[in-house]
Order: sequence, then structure tokens, then C-alpha cells
Amino acid sequence: MTAADVDLELPAALGRQLRVDAVRATAAAGSGHPTSSMSAADLMAVLLAGHLRYDVERPDHPGADRLVLSKGHASPLLYAALKAAGAIGDEELLTFRKLGSRLEGHPTPVLPWVDVATGSLGQGPAVGVGMALAGKRLAHLPYRVWVLCGDSEMAEGAVWEAFEHAGHEHLGNLTVIVDVNRLGQRGPTRHGWDLDAYARRARAFGWHTVEVDGHDVAAVDDAYTEAEATTDRPTAVLARTVKGSGVTAVANREGMHGKPLPDPREAIAELGGGADVRIRPAAPPPADGPPRAAAPHPLLPAYDVGDQVATRDAYGRALTALGTARPDVVALDGEVGDSTRTELFAKEHPDRYFECYIAEQQLVAAAMGMQACGWVPYAATFAAFLTRAHDFVRMAAVGRANLNLVGSHAGVAIGEDGPSQMGLEDLAMFRAVPGSTVLHPCDANQTARLVAAMADDGMAGVRYLRTMRGARPVLYEPGEDFPIGGSKLVRSSSGDRVTIAAAGVTVHEARAAADLLAAEGIGARVLDLYSVKPVDAVAVRVAAELTGCVLTVEDHRPEGGLGDAVAEAFADGRPVPLLARLAVRTMPGSATDAQQLAAAGIDAAAIAEAARDLVAAQGTRAA
Amino acid sequence: MTAADVDLELPAALGRQLRVDAVRATAAAGSGHPTSSMSAADLMAVLLAGHLRYDVERPDHPGADRLVLSKGHASPLLYAALKAAGAIGDEELLTFRKLGSRLEGHPTPVLPWVDVATGSLGQGPAVGVGMALAGKRLAHLPYRVWVLCGDSEMAEGAVWEAFEHAGHEHLGNLTVIVDVNRLGQRGPTRHGWDLDAYARRARAFGWHTVEVDGHDVAAVDDAYTEAEATTDRPTAVLARTVKGSGVTAVANREGMHGKPLPDPREAIAELGGGADVRIRPAAPPPADGPPRAAAPHPLLPAYDVGDQVATRDAYGRALTALGTARPDVVALDGEVGDSTRTELFAKEHPDRYFECYIAEQQLVAAAMGMQACGWVPYAATFAAFLTRAHDFVRMAAVGRANLNLVGSHAGVAIGEDGPSQMGLEDLAMFRAVPGSTVLHPCDANQTARLVAAMADDGMAGVRYLRTMRGARPVLYEPGEDFPIGGSKLVRSSSGDRVTIAAAGVTVHEARAAADLLAAEGIGARVLDLYSVKPVDAVAVRVAAELTGCVLTVEDHRPEGGLGDAVAEAFADGRPVPLLARLAVRTMPGSATDAQQLAAAGIDAAAIAEAARDLVAAQGTRAA
Repeated sequence: MTAADVDLELPAALGRQLRVDAVRATAAAGSGHPTSSMSAADLMAVLLAGHLRYDVERPDHPGADRLVLSKGHASPLLYAALKAAGAIGDEELLTFRKLGSRLEGHPTPVLPWVDVATGSLGQGPAVGVGMALAGKRLAHLPYRVWVLCGDSEMAEGAVWEAFEHAGHEHLGNLTVIVDVNRLGQRGPTRHGWDLDAYARRARAFGWHTVEVDGHDVAAVDDAYTEAEATTDRPTAVLARTVKGSGVTAVANREGMHGKPLPDPREAIAELGGGADVRIRPAAPPPADGPPRAAAPHPLLPAYDVGDQVATRDAYGRALTALGTARPDVVALDGEVGDSTRTELFAKEHPDRYFECYIAEQQLVAAAMGMQACGWVPYAATFAAFLTRAHDFVRMAAVGRANLNLVGSHAGVAIGEDGPSQMGLEDLAMFRAVPGSTVLHPCDANQTARLVAAMADDGMAGVRYLRTMRGARPVLYEPGEDFPIGGSKLVRSSSGDRVTIAAAGVTVHEARAAADLLAAEGIGARVLDLYSVKPVDAVAVRVAAELTGCVLTVEDHRPEGGLGDAVAEAFADGRPVPLLARLAVRTMPGSATDAQQLAAAGIDAAAIAEAARDLVAAQGTRAA
Repeated sequence: MTAADVDLELPAALGRQLRVDAVRATAAAGSGHPTSSMSAADLMAVLLAGHLRYDVERPDHPGADRLVLSKGHASPLLYAALKAAGAIGDEELLTFRKLGSRLEGHPTPVLPWVDVATGSLGQGPAVGVGMALAGKRLAHLPYRVWVLCGDSEMAEGAVWEAFEHAGHEHLGNLTVIVDVNRLGQRGPTRHGWDLDAYARRARAFGWHTVEVDGHDVAAVDDAYTEAEATTDRPTAVLARTVKGSGVTAVANREGMHGKPLPDPREAIAELGGGADVRIRPAAPPPADGPPRAAAPHPLLPAYDVGDQVATRDAYGRALTALGTARPDVVALDGEVGDSTRTELFAKEHPDRYFECYIAEQQLVAAAMGMQACGWVPYAATFAAFLTRAHDFVRMAAVGRANLNLVGSHAGVAIGEDGPSQMGLEDLAMFRAVPGSTVLHPCDANQTARLVAAMADDGMAGVRYLRTMRGARPVLYEPGEDFPIGGSKLVRSSSGDRVTIAAAGVTVHEARAAADLLAAEGIGARVLDLYSVKPVDAVAVRVAAELTGCVLTVEDHRPEGGLGDAVAEAFADGRPVPLLARLAVRTMPGSATDAQQLAAAGIDAAAIAEAARDLVAAQGTRAA
């Protein structure tokens, strides 16, 4: 027996134990994915025993390697590894998938050793790119990012956005390990055990590749060493494995996905029985986290009331100022920085700007990876195209990520480009994300304050800012405060008979409508609900109480946006005022900004007409 | 001058004219993308002059080649081509981007010669895969699918989902032409003029590739001929082009994206002036459309009241029966057919089943392509993972597509798998899509009828069906009718004091809650709003009128779902009843079905408690 053999005894034994614990945890739960865990057990064991630099006592160590379990359904493998590393005990392992347990069916950051939630397949490599970019280009730290993928998920486009990005950026600190066990959920994968099919694709995108028997611990060890030595390119380790490896009853058999083993006791015996292998990964090198400014408050650009400014311009300028004040702020864009105005930040802070090209999943995923490493990312593209990343946004919320997303070109007001470029469903998408904040400013000073607020330490979750293409007059003084969850009363008088609740471009239309109504003797108060979520329910209720009726108007579909937010302020059993809503119910074509607002029935004239009707209805009701 | 030279005079002249018309149309509009049109002008001219088999008089000819302008912003090029082919006149060309014009900023099927809307980049190849699959595997017709892409959009993951799918299916009838003009919106693309970077990637995915000078009409002609001769694989024609080619002032210059030329008159002069080249593409061969059944009504599976059946099972069985009755129905799935139960259809109708693996954008895009060819597709995956295809769903609506999408594993009731697998934002996503229909049945007989209704000729737009993982008792007799936009009064009595509006699993919880309330002497009526959009506003209003208050309860986030749908029924200025809503406001972990419903506060006990509060509030109000 050589020294190398002795060195490999530990990972071999650990691999067996990880299988046993995956079998035990899923048997105790009565559900879960043991066979998908078993195929990757040796890959995980070798990583822990000889390559990952990690301290379970300090999971937030800035110099530690990152491990992303992209195949999140193999959570029993991760939990078994955490047990072997001393992070959790055997008793907790057996709480897997039970009410109140931290060991959920798919890993989430409820566990301090999990950086991002996984379970929606194909997200790991893209998030890993963000972590690797942060290590290489922001923190300049030598940590390595390891992503463990299944073979089925390689069909996801997001994986190839990540391969493209990582290859082009020469992310030598990123290794993707693909557990090629040949079997997906319902049967064979497209490429079976054709490792070269994956390798050809990865190499075409500029990656180094290693093909290996995923159960030969010496070969896997060599593969990881080769990945570590490859510093000019990312490496894909393509490992041929057996689903359910080690247990004859399930090994390499279809129909064994996502269920406990038929006879756990026999399986454990075949695996050599229980053991208590302990592993202490190598310690990470000393390192500092992202830089923090002593006085993080930016000197924001100020605009004079009445100036014509687009809120997207205000975004770009405010973000640039924020970047000056805060060295931890970074910006990303999906190849439309001249439209979103992220280009202003890119010019001033090129070292903290990341061009993601036209790949919105990678755009959002990179931001997810960076925030997991302590940075404060702002990722922008057209509001319409953020729908491309909906699943990442959803998973960011599950993963308790702190993320700033910015969607420009809101609504029909963009004008001639037509519906494909209009953000008309974005408020619905972002409002439904749990714990989200949704902001839609109407002027430049308001935008600047909200951009800064999104970086405040007290803010958690997914924050969304919606900006507009066209210029509108500045309404508020530079010094005004715009708290999250607040609102602004733009116009009011004691005799108001209707409240018009608006946000963004419709605030300007509502003001004009109020002028029209005033000329007819109808007092209308205008409420600027720039904080769409949380909405200022108190202000809405007070206004409703005073005027008896509320008209909402939004440059968005009728479903899921401002109208729903206002209605929800009365969805707790309290008396409800008369409500009416204006929104985009048509399919727009091409036209000018003003023509679009008129055609969609959300311009000043349409608002005035609806307000008249509502006031009349109220009169009828009172009579 | 040889015969070949003479043959190529036409496309060369046509290429110049297409440029001139793109310059004229954008100059008249004052906006648009002339330079992106000019780079692809010769590619389009050669296609029209010698390869595309198409009859502008019969755009729905089943044997015609399909052309998808994936780079939708190059719409002036398409419109100029339609003018040359006699489909539109010069006067209409100059209405480009004006109010009421069919010539929108990005093409939509408002024009009969456009099959699918484009403008969100990276969608064309995936939709083209659907059209090519329909030609090869369903219709067995020799038509060819041509997709014209920009180089920037090759960064989109959806493109590589398409390349993977097409390569694996050996779609020799598909050609993707990439207009490699080196310049994206805000500057150089990742790969510039490195044609081989694209070719390497395409070949790795099993494609044939041809690299060509995109302004050498003879070379382009040869490339298309080579693509046509390559029948065992799809072909990518990688064409080196010059953005703004033909006009010195803009050619190959940054900062010239998406704006009219600085001096259109001079540009037209440099291009050789206006011309009137007419082109008549080759006629398509005779062909029949998809098969239609004489009696398309399926013999649906019937379930006995009280039987325990999961609605996902009912979906799979109903779809299978529908497939037997209707030869134009096809099914697609994202590698979870054993979970969604699409596997039942796949087993019975393997020739009309399409496995899309874990690639949800391709899944939805394939269905978009197939419906454009006259088929009736049903595409299914977990509701949660349909968020991956949000942008495709949005564009399907812009493209007036008739599309059936099915999301299984709705809500927290899925149990142990945890939040990554729970469809909790899907109703918000689908309700916000214009013209959509959103259905959420609670029992098996209801599911069967709704599955069949989705294929009815009268139904247009995006139809979404939400199914559940767990079994629940059958509530309705097999013969009952469930019209779209209808509802069912599950329980009522004359003394009802509260209405509980529910859908899916919460109908069952609401029934149990009504039992609890009845025992306390509180009459509660239960309304099954299986049609979430359009919601049965009349039934909701009648129930509200009778009981004075309405409690909505849904296994979905509070935003954008059933609660909002009910609130919207009162958003037209009519008096509003007392409203309250129960929904999933927590971040679920793992637990059993019943534990999840309880933890989220949407089970029978929580409903009964909220109903009591609402009834008490009503009493206070009355007093």
C-alpha cells in the first residue's frame, strides 16, 4: 500500500458513509433523493477530504471556497457531508424534510453553510459565475468556486449562459463538476454516459475539461488537482457515475428517482454498514471581506423642480454617485447600458462594472452570486426582459438574497418600439415575489433617493426599481425624503371628492387630470404611490376615507400591479371605498409616447373621465 | 458575364433596394433600426430570390417555408422584403412605427406574413425548432424553417436550448442564419467577427456550419444551397457582415444602433438611389394542413364522486383521451412527464409526444412554433418552473399565439419538497399576460372538462391550467359542465353570512371550514372559482350581495392571484363588500401536505377563523 493509497482511504470511506447517511435520512423522511445523492457521493467525498478550503465554524469566511449544490435535490448528500464535517449532528440529520427542520428537501440559506437556494435546476453554474467574478475581479481573493451539477440540468439554457460568460472571462477559479449518472427523473438523459458530448460543448465555450470515472477516488482527486492547476480557464469535470451506486437494488435502474430505497437496512449493510468518519476540510487562507465605507451616504445628484429628466437617467447618475460613496456597490447590465444608463456607472467605476451581454438569467444570477459574497449588486435591463430571469428572481427570494434589480422602459409610454419592449407585466412578477420591495418613482430626485435607499443595510430581499424611458418634469425638491412604504400627496384640497392613486408616468397624467377636473369644480387629490410594495396602506385608507372613492391608474396590465396593491389595502375586512382602476387593457402597437398613453386609456383625459364617473357613482350611492 | 453572374444580379440589386427602403422607412418614422437591417440585407435578398418557397397571397400555406426574424428590431428589412414581394405597398412601408400601422417597431402577427412576434432577442431559434419539429415529425412536409438571428442574441441561453434540441433531433429542415455584424446595441459583441467562435459552439451541439461573407451574394447563395443539401443535421450559416453596410457615414461604426441615418438622402444616393425591384419567391409545393377530426369531442375519463384523485392524474388521462379524439393535439413536457402525468399521453400517442428535457424556454417555444403551424399543443412542467419561460409566454401573447400550458405541483400543498418546487407565483404571472385564460380545477371531472375546453376553437390566447400533486376527493359528477368564466356554488343556504371563494386545494379546505362554521351556527357559502381568469364576476357579486362579505383563500402568494381576481370584480366603481384574503405569506420549508396548509394559514381551521372575524366585522359595520 503506497502513501497515495492511504491518502485515498479517507475519501473512499467517507463516500460510503455519505451514501449510508443519504439512505438513512431519506428513509427517515419517507421521501427525498437517495439515488441522486449516491451517484455524487465520491465526488463530494474527495472534494471535502482534499480540496475544499472551508471552516464550518466560520461559514461566512471571505477567503473560503464556495460550494454550490446545483443539483439541489441531492440535499441528503450535502447534509451528510455537513454531518461528517461536524456542522450538524446525526439527530438533526434524521429531521430531514420534517416540519421545522433546517434540512429542507432542497437546500436553502436557513442553513448557515448554504449560500444560495437551489432546487430549480440549471442555476448553480450561473450563480457560481457571480461568486467567481467577485473573487477574481472584485475581492482579488484566491478562493475557488465549486459547483456540483447533475447531467439532466445541462439542458438548461442558463447553464450555457454561464459557460459562455465564464469562458470569456477566463474564470480559472471556477470548477463545475457534472455528475453524469445517465438517468434523469423520468428516464435516460439526452446524452447518457457520453461524457464527450458534454466535454465538446464545454470546450467550445472555452473551458478546460476532464473526463473521469466518478467512483474512482484517485482519478477524481487527480481531476480536481488538474482543475486547481488550470488557472487560465474554468474547468468542467465530467464524471461518469452510477445513480444509486453501491446498492444493487437501485444502481443504474430506471424508476428509482426521488424515493427512499426499497430496503434501507439491506442497502446500508451492502454499503458496509454505518460508520463515523469525520472530516475537517483544509482551512481557508486569511482574507478580508468586501470594503465598507466609513460614511456610506452618497452625495446624490440634485435636480431643479420643473426640469425635464427621465428616471432612467436619474438611476444611472444616482448609482454612479452611490458607487463613489460605497466601495461595495457593483453594477451589472444586460448589454443595454446605454438605455438603462448603467453606462454612467461603468464609465466612472469600470472595475466594479460587469457587462453580462444579452443573457438576463446570467445577469441576475451573477448578482445573486456577488451578494452571497457580501457585495451590493445592482443589475439592470429593460423591465420586459427581466421576465427572462423570473425563475432566478423567485429562487433569490427562497434564498433570502439581498438583490437590487432595475427595469427600464416601463409601460406603453416607451412609444414606438412596441409591445415586445414594454415592461407591462413586471409589477405583477415582482410583487408576487415573497419579501420583495417594488419601487416606481415618477421624478428624478425621488429616483435618486430610492436608488440610495436600496443599498441601506436595513433593506432585505429582492428590491425592484422600475424606471421610465421618457423625460418628465421634476416634481419634488432635492431634499425631500421618500421612505420605503411611504407615499406623497401631490395635490389635495379640503373639498376633494376623488383620490387618484398613481405611480411613475401616471402621476404626471393624474396631475393634468386633476387640473381638468378642478376646472369643472371637482376636487381631486393625487397620491403618488412610488412604493408599490409595501404600499402605503395608511395613506390610501386616509385618502379613501376623506374622498370616498379611489381611482388607480397605472402603465401596466390591470392584473398584479398598482390597482391590486391598493385593493389589498382594504382586504382585511375593513369597509371598502368605491374603487376603480385604469390600466393597459389593449395590445399596443407602435405610436408616440402620448398616443400610446391615450390609446391605452391612461392619459389625463381618460383619468378625468373615469374620475367623473366615479364621483357620479358615489353621488348615486350617497343618494 | 456568366449565367451565374446574371442570376445573382437580382439578389444584389434587391439587397441594395432593401437597404434603401430600410433607410426610407426609418427616416419617415424618425426611429427604428436601419443599420441592423442593412447588415442583413444581402442575406435576406438571396433568401427571397433563390431559396424561400413562399406565396404572399397564401401566407398560411401549409407547405410554405417558414421565416422567423429573430432579430426583430430589423423589422424595416422584413417590411422592405414584403414590399419587394408585393405584399405591401410603398405607401404602407412609410407608415412604419406610426399609430395604427401594421408595421410595428418589431414584427407581430398583425401582419399576416408574420407567424410569431419577435423583438425579445434569442427566441427565434427555439420557436424555429417547434416549426421544424412540426414539419419533420408531425406533418411530414418538406418545408424548411429559416431563422435570421443577430450575433448579440447568441448569448441568450434559449438559443443554446434550441441548438441542443435541434442537434439531437437532427432537424435537417432548420437553418439559422447569424448576421455577425460585430456590433451590439451599446458596443462590440463578445466575439466580434470571430465566426469560428460561433461555429465551434454550433458544431459541438451537432450542427453543420458554413462561414461566409454576408455581402458576397454568390457565397451566401452557395451557403444556403449547402444548408438545403444538409438533411441529416440543422445548419448554421455564420455570415460576416457590416452593420450599416453600404453607407459610409454609419458602416461599422459604434453609436449608430437604433436610430435613423443622419442624412437619409445622401445615404440613398450612396446606395444607388431608389429602385423598384420586384421578387416572386418560388411557390411552395402542394400540401395539406394538420389533420382535423370530424367529431373532435373526446370521450373523457369519468370519476365517481368521493374517489381520491390528483388533478395532475386527471390532466394526463384527459389529454390522452383528447389526443385520441383529435389528431391535431400534441403534448410536450420538460422531463417531468412522470410528475405532470404527460407520460400517459406519451405512451398512447408517442408520435405526437415531444420530450423537451429540462429546458423550459424551449418547451414553451416549441409549442409556440407548433401552434403557428396549426397544431394544438399542450406543454407541461411544474408550475414553478414555467417561470423560466415567462418571457416566451409574454411574447406568445404579443404574438396572438394559441397555446395551452400546464403547471403541476401548485402551492405549498406539494409537501416535503419545499419552496423551490412550489408554484406560488404562477397565477400572478399568467393573469398578467394579456388575453390569457387561467384555470385551476379542484377535482378530476372538472379537470377533464377544462382540459378538453382548452382545445376548443373558440378559445384564443394563452391558456394556463394549474394542477395539484396530491389526491383530493372528486366533488362533481362526470356530466357537469364547467364553462370558462364560470364558477360552482359548492355549498350554500339561505342564511349564509359569509362567502368563501376558493380554487383548487382550498375548495376542499373551504368545505371543511364551512362544516366547522355550520356547527357554530354560521352559514358559509363556498364558491369554486376554477376559472381564475376570466373570473366569474357576476357570481362573486351575487354572493357578496347575499352574504355581505367575501373571504378569498388560495394556495398562492397574496399578490396577483385569486384574491386580486375577486377584488377586481369590484374595481369598476360599484359598492364593495367587506373583503378579506388568505394566501401564503410565509416562506415554507419542508413538511407534509396538511402541515404546509396549516403553517401557511390556508387550511380549514384558518379559514374558519378568518370567516368568524369577517362575520364579526360585518356585525360591527351593521351596528
